[in-house]
Amino acid sequence: MKKENTVTINCDMGEGYSLYRCGDDAGIMPHIDLGNVACGFHAADPAVIRDTVKLAAKHGLPVGAHPSFPDRQGFGRRDMVINREELSAIIHYQVSALKGFLDMAGLPLNHIKPHGALYRAAWMREEVSQAIADAAVFYNVPVLGMAGTLQEEVYRARGVTLISEFYVDNDYDDDGHLIVSRDHAVRDPAEAARRAVRMLSEGKGTTITGRDFKVRAESICIHSDTPNIVELARVLKDAVRPWSPSAAA
Amino acid sequence: MKKENTVTINCDMGEGYSLYRCGDDAGIMPHIDLGNVACGFHAADPAVIRDTVKLAAKHGLPVGAHPSFPDRQGFGRRDMVINREELSAIIHYQVSALKGFLDMAGLPLNHIKPHGALYRAAWMREEVSQAIADAAVFYNVPVLGMAGTLQEEVYRARGVTLISEFYVDNDYDDDGHLIVSRDHAVRDPAEAARRAVRMLSEGKGTTITGRDFKVRAESICIHSDTPNIVELARVLKDAVRPWSPSAAA
Amino acid sequence: MKKENTVTINCDMGEGYSLYRCGDDAGIMPHIDLGNVACGFHAADPAVIRDTVKLAAKHGLPVGAHPSFPDRQGFGRRDMVINREELSAIIHYQVSALKGFLDMAGLPLNHIKPHGALYRAAWMREEVSQAIADAAVFYNVPVLGMAGTLQEEVYRARGVTLISEFYVDNDYDDDGHLIVSRDHAVRDPAEAARRAVRMLSEGKGTTITGRDFKVRAESICIHSDTPNIVELARVLKDAVRPWSPSAAA
Amino acid sequence: MKKENTVTINCDMGEGYSLYRCGDDAGIMPHIDLGNVACGFHAADPAVIRDTVKLAAKHGLPVGAHPSFPDRQGFGRRDMVINREELSAIIHYQVSALKGFLDMAGLPLNHIKPHGALYRAAWMREEVSQAIADAAVFYNVPVLGMAGTLQEEVYRARGVTLISEFYVDNDYDDDGHLIVSRDHAVRDPAEAARRAVRMLSEGKGTTITGRDFKVRAESICIHSDTPNIVELARVLKDAVRPWSPSAAA
Repeated sequence: MKKENTVTINCDMGEGYSLYRCGDDAGIMPHIDLGNVACGFHAADPAVIRDTVKLAAKHGLPVGAHPSFPDRQGFGRRDMVINREELSAIIHYQVSALKGFLDMAGLPLNHIKPHGALYRAAWMREEVSQAIADAAVFYNVPVLGMAGTLQEEVYRARGVTLISEFYVDNDYDDDGHLIVSRDHAVRDPAEAARRAVRMLSEGKGTTITGRDFKVRAESICIHSDTPNIVELARVLKDAVRPWSPSAAA
Repeated sequence: MKKENTVTINCDMGEGYSLYRCGDDAGIMPHIDLGNVACGFHAADPAVIRDTVKLAAKHGLPVGAHPSFPDRQGFGRRDMVINREELSAIIHYQVSALKGFLDMAGLPLNHIKPHGALYRAAWMREEVSQAIADAAVFYNVPVLGMAGTLQEEVYRARGVTLISEFYVDNDYDDDGHLIVSRDHAVRDPAEAARRAVRMLSEGKGTTITGRDFKVRAESICIHSDTPNIVELARVLKDAVRPWSPSAAA
Repeated sequence: MKKENTVTINCDMGEGYSLYRCGDDAGIMPHIDLGNVACGFHAADPAVIRDTVKLAAKHGLPVGAHPSFPDRQGFGRRDMVINREELSAIIHYQVSALKGFLDMAGLPLNHIKPHGALYRAAWMREEVSQAIADAAVFYNVPVLGMAGTLQEEVYRARGVTLISEFYVDNDYDDDGHLIVSRDHAVRDPAEAARRAVRMLSEGKGTTITGRDFKVRAESICIHSDTPNIVELARVLKDAVRPWSPSAAA
Repeated sequence: MKKENTVTINCDMGEGYSLYRCGDDAGIMPHIDLGNVACGFHAADPAVIRDTVKLAAKHGLPVGAHPSFPDRQGFGRRDMVINREELSAIIHYQVSALKGFLDMAGLPLNHIKPHGALYRAAWMREEVSQAIADAAVFYNVPVLGMAGTLQEEVYRARGVTLISEFYVDNDYDDDGHLIVSRDHAVRDPAEAARRAVRMLSEGKGTTITGRDFKVRAESICIHSDTPNIVELARVLKDAVRPWSPSAAA
């Protein structure tokens, strides 16, 4: 039975660099719907990008760009104050570089999902969401992000589609804000699946202190470096199958 | 009177970075035919690339990619030993990033010209010219480079057009090899023009010790950081006007 | 006649990188009392640092470290949110690297002056001034900075001496805050000298809208990339000679 | 019974970066005699260096600097052609930065061991071994390296002690040259120990094709990223105990 609302699963990918590897991309790909591929500014180098995109093509996985502040030392997790003109160029550079590898693999650019501190800055500073919108407008793709934040209005005004997200391998605080921390990573596949199903069927999430909050999301985000992620992805995918976009009508 | 052989003038561009500026790009653009724009690995950051490409669009200047080894500290002038697979990705990344800004400005990618140590490595190591050819084949553009070197055969076998170059603001040693050094930069516009005209009319250049060598080239390269370059470019353009591709038949 | 209060002139130095040069360090050194040498995170590479320190040794110029956020692309002028533990290590790394070149040149480490966005962040965020204090305590040197800001208390509590600064080649806004911008650079040597003398004799500065504010400072800062800086430094040094620490009693 | 010749075990350390971790440094430290700590140019950032040095201090492990070519993307494994003057500054910068953290932890700088491509370049290019010797002379410490290579003469002429090395977790080719590759990593602790004991008792190693070659070395190198390295280190240390510098006379 296909449900009224549908949901995809998305995951960050290609976050190795140099000799360092990060996450079992090949293991996760069969269980997700969208891959967000790092573009070289917080993680990934050209060879990592090429190999990740090739792998995605093999799995038929739609790929989006995962641009970041220029901060490899901080893995893109430290806020930086950059004006819109410069940030717009920084994002365009990354998305375009990734697009070159997508063209090579015969894949379209599917979406943009900002990484880390850039993702959070888009909730709060208009110049940041405008710079993201610049790339989304140019490449005519939607942006993955948190609904109910400043960016939503910016994107609407620019004609950019926001695909709202819900995280099931991280906790939320009592303001409904995501807690990005390994200590708050949800490791139990069944628990992650339970959260997803509750969001989809009841429109609710639970904060770390046990309070409910309203949430509707079109995509569920998981992280390739969460422990046990391949099993978690498999169980999660199974649980949300009734809401899958490809479920029979 | 149009001559049988024609010649263009090309110049490296957009080689500033951060707050640093390098060369008077705006002053040079009116006097040249092709601009080679740095892609961020030896010089240029995203904002510099965007601004340089916009300026080129304003001047109607055809733009090529000017990729480099990943060596900003050394301005791409230090040889690096990188295998073909990795180097191919490194070049593709840079060309694709530049292409994104060309798309934004409504300009096609006109050519590829490798920078500095990468330019020289292409003469001597097959894996380097193959990696350059990978990008040229993918984007279906010619490569600017030195004729009579190993790369020529590689490109021919791959169906890549080599646009041969002659330098008039640097000297050549007795083996006919370019001496890349500010001490050997030709500063006198008239002398640069004289060298260009002699190459075009007699097919000859002169080494630093005064010996003649044979040379045929389809493009003349000058450097934006050569002292007096705007005046040099103006005088040079005037001198080679009879060989201009746009001269009346 | 020696005045009761004395003042030094300090200037940022060694801010070239790769092939890029920035400021006429050799021209300025004879006219200043303290040089703040970049450490490689916003500007300078190892060879630039070595050469700048050697030059300072030749001029008998006391040298301090000029550490930055790790942001070469932004020349250290973009605020970054970095926790104290990590920032402390980032600053210690830079100061220690510079110290290695000072040891080589037979010079002591004279002081620390944070650069750009790090300089400003020290006014406002305690973790930043604590991280700066960590290095100052370890190396037992004073810090150059703006008095009347949060950092003053932090340094006092840690036993770190703050050498207060006044800028004469930049304007101040009506809150008495420095306007860091080339548009607001003071280019007239006489005007810069006049500001210095007024601060020293009357304890006053003037904001960009013409209002007076109180200011006492032990050092006057000028920038090596201000146009006309060598002449400005010469005229300024002459004007503040009565307040020079080395003036006869 | 203490043997006439003694041997130490050394291991590369602190090769994480950003969020990436590399090797179980804490697990290995109890079983080795010398730690070579990355300095930030091929791996490690300031916080990684500080934490690694602190850990070494806790284990009473003597620490040396492990400088590299400036090539983080290539993990310092790609040869770069850098002139002596510049390379000397690049090495001095790294060693000095590390020294700052050693000073903080109350540890002396024990030695220098060049990393990866820099290690190999020192065998073959005099300007490279001279640049390494510059730092060794300045800091008055020995260099870990391969005996029987060009560097040996350079160091002898400069009064620098070379501590010769033998690798037991990598194979050698028929020229007696080390094969640096994960495919040729020796994973069996007993086999690694056997090689060490044979070198120590018979002065011989075996190439990958089974031929013997002569070898005398004062230190045995193992790699923190070799699979099974903690167990390998434990077994190895046990096997070479009779040759330990600290064995009773």
